This record gives sequence, structure tokens and C-alpha cells, in this order.
Amino acid sequence: MRDFLPEQAKKKQFIEDLCRRTFEKYGFEPLQSPVVEDFALLAAKGSGGEAIKDEIYYFKDKGERELGLRYDLTVPLARIVATNPTMQKPFKRYCIGTVYRYDRPQAKRYREFTQADFDIIGSKSPISDFEILEVTCDVLRSLGLEFKVLVNNRLLLEDLAVKCGVPKEKIRECFRSIDKLNKIGEKGVAKELSEKGLSDAILEQIKTNSLAVVKDSIPQSKGLAELESLLELCAQTGLREVCFDLALARGLEYYTGNVFEAALENGPSVGGGGRYDDLVKVYGGQSSPALGFSFGIDRLLDTLEETLAVGPSTDIFIAMVSEKAAVQALKLAAALRKLGAGVEVDLMSRNIKRNLEYANKKAIPFFAAIGDDELESGTLKIKEMRTGQEKEFAFSDVQEISGLVKKS
Amino acid sequence: MRDFLPEQAKKKQFIEDLCRRTFEKYGFEPLQSPVVEDFALLAAKGSGGEAIKDEIYYFKDKGERELGLRYDLTVPLARIVATNPTMQKPFKRYCIGTVYRYDRPQAKRYREFTQADFDIIGSKSPISDFEILEVTCDVLRSLGLEFKVLVNNRLLLEDLAVKCGVPKEKIRECFRSIDKLNKIGEKGVAKELSEKGLSDAILEQIKTNSLAVVKDSIPQSKGLAELESLLELCAQTGLREVCFDLALARGLEYYTGNVFEAALENGPSVGGGGRYDDLVKVYGGQSSPALGFSFGIDRLLDTLEETLAVGPSTDIFIAMVSEKAAVQALKLAAALRKLGAGVEVDLMSRNIKRNLEYANKKAIPFFAAIGDDELESGTLKIKEMRTGQEKEFAFSDVQEISGLVKKS
Repeated sequence: MRDFLPEQAKKKQFIEDLCRRTFEKYGFEPLQSPVVEDFALLAAKGSGGEAIKDEIYYFKDKGERELGLRYDLTVPLARIVATNPTMQKPFKRYCIGTVYRYDRPQAKRYREFTQADFDIIGSKSPISDFEILEVTCDVLRSLGLEFKVLVNNRLLLEDLAVKCGVPKEKIRECFRSIDKLNKIGEKGVAKELSEKGLSDAILEQIKTNSLAVVKDSIPQSKGLAELESLLELCAQTGLREVCFDLALARGLEYYTGNVFEAALENGPSVGGGGRYDDLVKVYGGQSSPALGFSFGIDRLLDTLEETLAVGPSTDIFIAMVSEKAAVQALKLAAALRKLGAGVEVDLMSRNIKRNLEYANKKAIPFFAAIGDDELESGTLKIKEMRTGQEKEFAFSDVQEISGLVKKS
Repeated sequence: MRDFLPEQAKKKQFIEDLCRRTFEKYGFEPLQSPVVEDFALLAAKGSGGEAIKDEIYYFKDKGERELGLRYDLTVPLARIVATNPTMQKPFKRYCIGTVYRYDRPQAKRYREFTQADFDIIGSKSPISDFEILEVTCDVLRSLGLEFKVLVNNRLLLEDLAVKCGVPKEKIRECFRSIDKLNKIGEKGVAKELSEKGLSDAILEQIKTNSLAVVKDSIPQSKGLAELESLLELCAQTGLREVCFDLALARGLEYYTGNVFEAALENGPSVGGGGRYDDLVKVYGGQSSPALGFSFGIDRLLDTLEETLAVGPSTDIFIAMVSEKAAVQALKLAAALRKLGAGVEVDLMSRNIKRNLEYANKKAIPFFAAIGDDELESGTLKIKEMRTGQEKEFAFSDVQEISGLVKKS
């Protein structure tokens, strides 16, 4: 787990704010749930399963109740939907929050990390699959990233596996190997499949990455139809970053239809998602179509950290040279803040030179100092740090000063 | 612990955003730290103490490491300051995050709750005490609340206790009773004091609530001087909501100087804070002046929930009557969002009547439907839900449509 010191925290907030603004532009609303959940919920069959215990923070409270820290934001969502059956549909929510996994620590893997999820509950329409991709692309485009969003369909993959002679009970294992195609290559996957006693017929199909080949093979597949509707909408509306990837399986058990993954050009995956129409039922709710996507904020931050520049929120620093000047400085600061300017005052009783150094280090764009001369004349000079240029104002010219210093 | 469904989550976000904007206007910067901390840290002497174990979520991870969920945001801050000694001073940070206490559940008490903290590290100046009060008042004023910020000083109270014959080792116990003055009244406190074997001389002084009386009694008190400087600044700059309250002791062990508490008129406390100059040293850092304030976001939300109205983020709902219309509707929606409008489209394949009902329930201000007629004419009507008034536009008039529907 890691701390985010201000420079980094500001960038993280910038990314989270951008996600939030984008989600809201599509009508998603916020939902917040606790970090601590009942273990039974996290380990439900069809969701995490008992095996999840090894991968999460599990503990008992003083009442011996089994608890765990949430490992994703989808399971709590499914719980909430299941227990609020009268909620208006479509229920479109987003949640930006921390989740916890008890992984072996690795570089760029954190045990606490932040996800930004957006989900649609209650819609079977391919337009909702499309909207999930639209939001995904909108966020990544707004961040100035080069990326692709890969799509595939779990039903299609299952149909293909059956067609290629993979026994039903081995399908999940088969997918786990397929999912590694980009990581360990064709030979690697073929080796894994043969070790698992599976033919590599499915690999032959997958490596063509051709919808036409798949269509020949499993023309009646419901998953194929779902995927085609979605790709058609993307083509018609010009969502060009979306690409079909027959090797995309996505590890999670609960996906039931289209699956998505966003990957940076020559970079890591920054998020994934898909349809999980059966998950709400797992938590005792009525069966309900559902789908969503989850961005890994830490991945985005690690990618953007070097290039993202988030300026200071302070527009002007005001130094005060005497105690009497302090009251005048504090009054001016308060008046400027009322007009929306960000103002810092000297809290360290430093001299002007050291205050200038501080303002400079913090990249605060304007600077003023108030001492006996200023009190006497009733005016002060506002210095633009970048150019060194100074302008004189009366203390009462707050409107003009704020106009000068406030970021446009 | 509780979930925040959208209506409530939107209001909570509104309050958090307002806190954040206000903090930033004074030059505070964000800092984030994990929810899970080492137990040793949470239970350090001079901070939580071993006894804290009963009041927090404590557990061991798979490596038998003792951990706990943070119970405040000040202790993690002190840890970070202690381990980053080169940080530029003043270090002004804010943190809005969840904290955890294993309380007996009560009405309006939650085991997970959100605090909005802002702190200044490195400044001894009374101007920083003043700034903390200024920010506190600014936030509460912006929320439209009637409130008072009570201030007192721990050193002053200690000096007064010694003067009134309270033995040093009983001072803390004595304060715990004094702190209840507003809750259990004068008689209640007197009874507690006598049960603890303490004279009620200090109570006599405290109930005068007069600085003049205190000054007579302990003219040399350093705490008195600190408090006077602060009250003087408040008077000179017109921070009228700040009042002296000699009965304010604040439970926490780590306060060393001025203490603060914000209370709504005829309502509950919504936050508190003070100086804790010794806390950074507890965590192995160099001794460093420090002070801050913490808002209870849940308390503010409970207070404001009825009156706060946060509108929908969606400006217009677009219904589509056919599959062909869908592509046109999606293109229009995308173009409008690009101009900053919030747009929802029909994801449920509903008829116009039911879509109107949905838009109405969600208080979405504008509505449009696209069908064969609209495709043919290349125009659509935008209906204002409140008035029923309709205006016709070409599909290409996105600028005009966005101008009409976007919140000003």
C-alpha cells in the first residue's frame, strides 16, 4: 500500500475528476459502499468463491463475524441491486473507490488500489454495451492517450470451444490459457493446452482473429450475434478505437456475454469489463441484465505521471512584514478568496526573500508583500513571478486584483 | 456501515466538493494514505495507546502482521510527516477519506464514516491557528449553516487545573468531566468531580466563561497568551462566529494548545481540531508544530440531507423509435456531450410515453425523440419538460441544441 503525496495526489485527483465528469455526462450517478463487507458475500459461489480467501484481506471482528475488504466494486454493486429490487431501471451508477487484494507485492502492483467503475443494470440492449465502450473511449481520449478497446464474447468463446471438442468442464481452464496468448505467445498456449490434455484446434481458430472464420464455424452462436450487433454500432457511429480480439477471455468467472479490455498502444491494460447478467441473482436478487467497466486508476496514474502537469491551486501569495500588516493582509486575502481566488499568506514569519523562494518553488504565479510603507500609502504592488512585472493597486481594488491573478 | 445510494451520494459529494474547493482556496493540497495501517502505529503511546484496540478494527494478515483500519486521518499524517523530514514547510494538506471505529452501533453513529481534514505542519504562528478557524467558518458559511466555532486552550486549562488544586495525574480525568458540561450540566459535572475526589473549584472558574477571571487567576499562562493572540486576530478581522468556551477540553490526548470545535446553532458538533505540536515526534520525526481541523461529513450530510437539492447531471434525454433512428440518436448524443452537455439515451427500448415518464422521474429538463419522421425531415423537436414547450432544430444544429439544454 502506498501514500500519495501532494504532487502525485493532485494528478490522481485530476484523473478521477475526469472520469467522474465523463461518467456524469452519460447519466451515471454516484454510489458508495463500505470498504468492509461480509466474507460470505465476497466468497459467494459464482462470484469470488471460497478460494478468494487467500487473495483478499480476511478477518473476524470482535463478535467473530467473518469480514473482508472488498476486492472489487462489482460485488458490492450486485449486493445493493439485489437488496433494492424497486430501483428504477436502467440503474446507471459509477463508483470511484479503493479495493484490496492480498497479492505478493510486486513492482507497480499495490495491495490497495483505486478503481473507477461504471455499470448499467437492467438493460439487455446492445446500445448499453455500446455506451460502456463509448464512455471508455471518451475517458481515455480525454486523457490524451493512444489506446485500443478490445472486445470479445464469452458465449462465442464457449460455443467455439465446444465446437473444437473442448469438454464442457474444461472450458474455464482452456480460457485461462487462451487469455495468455498476448503474454506467452502461440507456442506457450499450445504447450499449456496439451499439458491440460486439450487439442489446439481452438487455438487454430483463435489465431485467425477472423469473425468470418468464426461465423463459418458456429453460425448459430448467440454470443456471435451479440458481438456483431455491438461491432456494427461501433462501425456506424465511428467508434474507431474498438477492435475485435478473439483471444480476449477475461479471467473473472461472472462474465456472461461481451467482454471488454482497454489497452494502451504498446502499453499495459488500463481496465476491463463486460456483461455479467447472472451476478445479481447470486446475491438473492431477481435475475437482471448487467454490464460495466472498471478503470485501474493506479495504472493510468503510473502511465500519465511523467506527462501530466497539474498547477497550484494558489493564485497569489501574500507576505506580511509586521504584525499590523498581518491584519491588513488577512483582510485582503479573505476578500480575494471570496471572489474565488486561491490565496496563501505567510505562516512562517519569513522575510520577503524567503517568501519569494517559497512562492517560486510552489509555482504560485503572483506575489505581494505588505509592510509599513503599504499600510501608509494604502496601496500594494502585485508581482507576476514569471515576468517580474509589478502593478500597483489600492487595498480596496480587490475586484481588479482578483481579475489579474485568477486563472482564466 | 452504510451504503450511499445515488440521491444521498450526490449530496455527500456536493459537501465533499465544497470542502475541497474551500481547502484549495487557502493553499491546502491533497494527500492520500491507505485505510490499513500497522497496528503499532495506531496504538502508539501519546496517540491512540494500546487501549485503542477495543475501539478499532484490528486484525492480523496472513503473515501474522498486526494491522488496523485507521480511526482518524491525523495519525497517518503524522506518520507521513515523520518519515518525510525534507518536506517543504509549511506543509498544508487536506484529506477527505473514510475512517473506522468499532463502536456499538447507535442511531446516526456509523462504523465507517468520512472525515474532511485540513492541517498545517511547521508553523508556530497564531496566524495558522487563525487560518484553521477561517477555513472552518468558510466551509460552514458556504453550506448555508448557522454555527459557532468554540475555541479554548489545553495549556490554559492545565494551568487553571493546577491553580485549582487538581493533582497533575488527575488532570486528564478532570478534563473528561469538564468536557461534558454542555451535556450533563453543572450539577452533573460537580457530581463526577466529587466522585473522582476532585474539588469543584475549577468548575467555579469555568462556569464564569470569562477570560478576565482566568487572567486574574493565571496571568502568566502561556496557553492564555496563545488563546488571546488568536481571539485578537478573529476580532480584528471580523471572524464573528468564533467564541471563547472555557469548558471545551476535547477528548483526544494529543492536543497541546488551542482547541476548536464547530457546533451548529441548536445542533450537534460537526467537527473539531486543535494544535498537536508533539504528535510528529511520537512517530519518530523531528518535533514539529502542527494543527488542524476535521469535519464530520456524515454529520453535515445528516444535517443537510433534507434541504440540499442536487439536480441531475443529465441535461437531455434522447429516445429512439427504430434501429435506424438509434444510430442518428447516438451520433447526436455524442456530439452534444462533446460540447459538454449531459445526455442520456434510451437503453430499454421503451416507447415514448414510458421514456417521458423516466425523464420526468429523473427531473431531466429536456427531451427529444427520433423516429422515421425525424430521419426523413432531418430535424427534431426538443421539448422542455417543465413548460412542455417544443423547439425544432436540424440534426446539425448541435451548437444551438447544446446552448439550449446545457445548465448555465
